Amino acid sequence: MARWEPGARERLVVAAVDLFAEQGYDTTTVAQIAERAGVTRSTFFRHFPDKREVLAAGQDTLCQLLAAGIADAPSSATPLEAVGAGLEAAAQAFTPERRDLGPKMRDAIAASSELQERETLKRVGLATAITDALKERGISDPTASLAAEVGVLALKMAYARWADPTNRQELAAIARQSLQELQTASATLS
Amino acid sequence: MARWEPGARERLVVAAVDLFAEQGYDTTTVAQIAERAGVTRSTFFRHFPDKREVLAAGQDTLCQLLAAGIADAPSSATPLEAVGAGLEAAAQAFTPERRDLGPKMRDAIAASSELQERETLKRVGLATAITDALKERGISDPTASLAAEVGVLALKMAYARWADPTNRQELAAIARQSLQELQTASATLS
Repeated sequence: MARWEPGARERLVVAAVDLFAEQGYDTTTVAQIAERAGVTRSTFFRHFPDKREVLAAGQDTLCQLLAAGIADAPSSATPLEAVGAGLEAAAQAFTPERRDLGPKMRDAIAASSELQERETLKRVGLATAITDALKERGISDPTASLAAEVGVLALKMAYARWADPTNRQELAAIARQSLQELQTASATLS
Repeated sequence: MARWEPGARERLVVAAVDLFAEQGYDTTTVAQIAERAGVTRSTFFRHFPDKREVLAAGQDTLCQLLAAGIADAPSSATPLEAVGAGLEAAAQAFTPERRDLGPKMRDAIAASSELQERETLKRVGLATAITDALKERGISDPTASLAAEVGVLALKMAYARWADPTNRQELAAIARQSLQELQTASATLS
């Protein structure tokens, strides 16, 4: 019988990303991921419903951090300032261990349409979390949805830069800069 | 042996949406959809790889229309004006038959997480088509991606209004109005 082991979840994520990168997503099995992580298959299934969902590890945490950051922004904050506060709060989920996984994860996603689907759905889930948190602040649609899309684009840009091994800036700083670039771009739309 | 029959694709879409609405997506089989449409299972599979993909019928056409409309916009057009030209061109895909399907399709999607996933992926596919078409015009990121998200939000808003049986305006006009509302909203972001 496997016991509940602290750190098993993190080890499963690392093992899965390693295997996806080494041998491809399609040929990687749950049994292989569990073995590489040093846990049983049933421990795997206590953490994830299937191998695709390993990629979404942390999505719930990220949504909660975004929502909390937005809720805690000063009442005078503009919609994009509130989104910025959300990104700032979310940045703490991006640990150094996760940064090291970045390039491998990017390669694994690029090679698998199924992982691309999951990644897309994750991003849309984040947009929904931001939209809902902005609505809680009394910001209505379409402004809330629009600000959420800007926030998700900022996070996507920031993540790509952060996961680049040559970049040693903190995610919070990169996200601020990405949001600023999008704000500048939005002035050139029309 | 079933022969290739004009109109079979459209009948399959109508049959699928009817069945999803009547008895739920999960319990509906490809055989039932084919029977309701008056075609064989093999005819179904000539048009769609599985029942989920019936929902994405027309996605390729829509992407092509969006891209063509954006490419044909005057060279002086701003990014959002080019997106508006794309939406205008895409509006021709929204036929009266499709309008009648709207409420049933909305209910079927609301009741099935698998259809919601497919709908989400469709929307992201449209965003990619718009982004690529804008880049062809020399508009770079992040402006191209941002304008594409605005375009997809406008189409989503416009579709919801158009599919409402009490609304008899043309989609092109509703889309123009939605894009205008988003433009106004973008001025209040910061």
